[in-house]
Amino acid sequence: MDKIQRNERLAVIIKTLCDHPNKVFTLGYFSEMFGSAKSTISEDLDLLQKTFEKNNMGNICTIPGASGGVKYVPYMSEAEIQVTLEELSKELSNPERVLPGGYLYMLDIIYNPEWVNKIAMMFAGKFSKLELDCVITVETKGIPLAFATAQYLDVPLVIVRHYNEATDGASVNINYVSASAKKIQTMVLPMKSLKRNSRLLFIDDFMKGGGTSKGIIEMANQFDSEVVGIGVMIETNQPNKKLVENYYSLVTLNADLIENTIIDIKPNI
Amino acid sequence: MDKIQRNERLAVIIKTLCDHPNKVFTLGYFSEMFGSAKSTISEDLDLLQKTFEKNNMGNICTIPGASGGVKYVPYMSEAEIQVTLEELSKELSNPERVLPGGYLYMLDIIYNPEWVNKIAMMFAGKFSKLELDCVITVETKGIPLAFATAQYLDVPLVIVRHYNEATDGASVNINYVSASAKKIQTMVLPMKSLKRNSRLLFIDDFMKGGGTSKGIIEMANQFDSEVVGIGVMIETNQPNKKLVENYYSLVTLNADLIENTIIDIKPNI
Repeated sequence: MDKIQRNERLAVIIKTLCDHPNKVFTLGYFSEMFGSAKSTISEDLDLLQKTFEKNNMGNICTIPGASGGVKYVPYMSEAEIQVTLEELSKELSNPERVLPGGYLYMLDIIYNPEWVNKIAMMFAGKFSKLELDCVITVETKGIPLAFATAQYLDVPLVIVRHYNEATDGASVNINYVSASAKKIQTMVLPMKSLKRNSRLLFIDDFMKGGGTSKGIIEMANQFDSEVVGIGVMIETNQPNKKLVENYYSLVTLNADLIENTIIDIKPNI
Repeated sequence: MDKIQRNERLAVIIKTLCDHPNKVFTLGYFSEMFGSAKSTISEDLDLLQKTFEKNNMGNICTIPGASGGVKYVPYMSEAEIQVTLEELSKELSNPERVLPGGYLYMLDIIYNPEWVNKIAMMFAGKFSKLELDCVITVETKGIPLAFATAQYLDVPLVIVRHYNEATDGASVNINYVSASAKKIQTMVLPMKSLKRNSRLLFIDDFMKGGGTSKGIIEMANQFDSEVVGIGVMIETNQPNKKLVENYYSLVTLNADLIENTIIDIKPNI
């Protein structure tokens, strides 16, 4: 096997695996593609595994057995997470972000692919072992984060809406109290968009009281499904006691201070 | 330079470039990272360029000059586009998708990362030379497609909403007539979320009369900005004359037939 061929195989394998995070490809898939022996592909994968590990590029995981294969698992090291959360806190702490009413403008972060992918990679790393059926979110601001997380975890995205949409067929509607929007809101989920007995990861940009998370849990119940993980980018320190217990948040905003236009945001590490 | 080192450099370069489509990295960036001469990096890039081209993995483009460097440009060949659009048409033509009222259920496609990325790659290929400032969409269904397109084009996403959100500050509101929702709707865009004199690409899942596109163009005008491209996944054959003229759509739905639960969808190639 000459050098060019190995380089070419490695390039194709990396591109294929990284374009489909957490998706398992059999060794046979690559060995057919290249007309190479499985042992050759195995050697390629060993080499990639070491290179990815050494350069903090995520994990190349081989799964043994008949149904085995290889997958790329996006991953951020503890050190990278720390640096990223410090950068995020600093970026969010820009005083120009404070809006009338004590709100924090952050659309430029949560709609920016570069930030979204970094944040989603932290969620994907945290929740990769949950055997999820899908990622769920509520429109609108959390959608890019939830989509990117779903992509890293190789599962579909489900979007709960606030208003009924004739074009999506029959739906389940529930009401819930959102602390951040300070009102009773409706959640709508089309019957066709979630299978019974699904395991869900709820992803959102912001958590104040946890009302939205509680609403999503209730919605999941209507589909005999379970929310097995909750990930939010930013939570507020107040109220200290949220309506849900187990959740993962990246940074905490001191909500008392922001009313005096002081932004105090700390990484949760 | 021994074999292991070249393999490792190639792996890191591929991962870096493909994680940031359309983002330019200088040769100096990689030469510093590896402690290698720029001529060595140049050789690596030549090799990658050939490998990517040969295997239809997109383009590795080198940009000459002082501000030059290298970037990965996602790209689908004409042949791949044809196959993908035929698959998409077939998938959308499943009779179980027809909902009461003659609507077509497609959330499982437009929220599925695998499909979304394929569709976004076609949009990114089509619009990559437009010198865009951002991708814009209207909540909700087009957001994953628009986000993935923005990611491939290395620009931020802007999301126009239907209702005012106190948490995003002052906004511009306009009204428009949506043919598919059969009603007058409102578009809301926070002042802070779009810079003056921006060049925008509007991405959406569905176009019937083009009312939403026209609304987006008007919204852009309020920000002294210009919609320089419009991409939609699916358009209807009726009305034949849309409210906008230049747009790119992937497949066409025969809207007359669907009322009799016959789904006729054709690739636009």
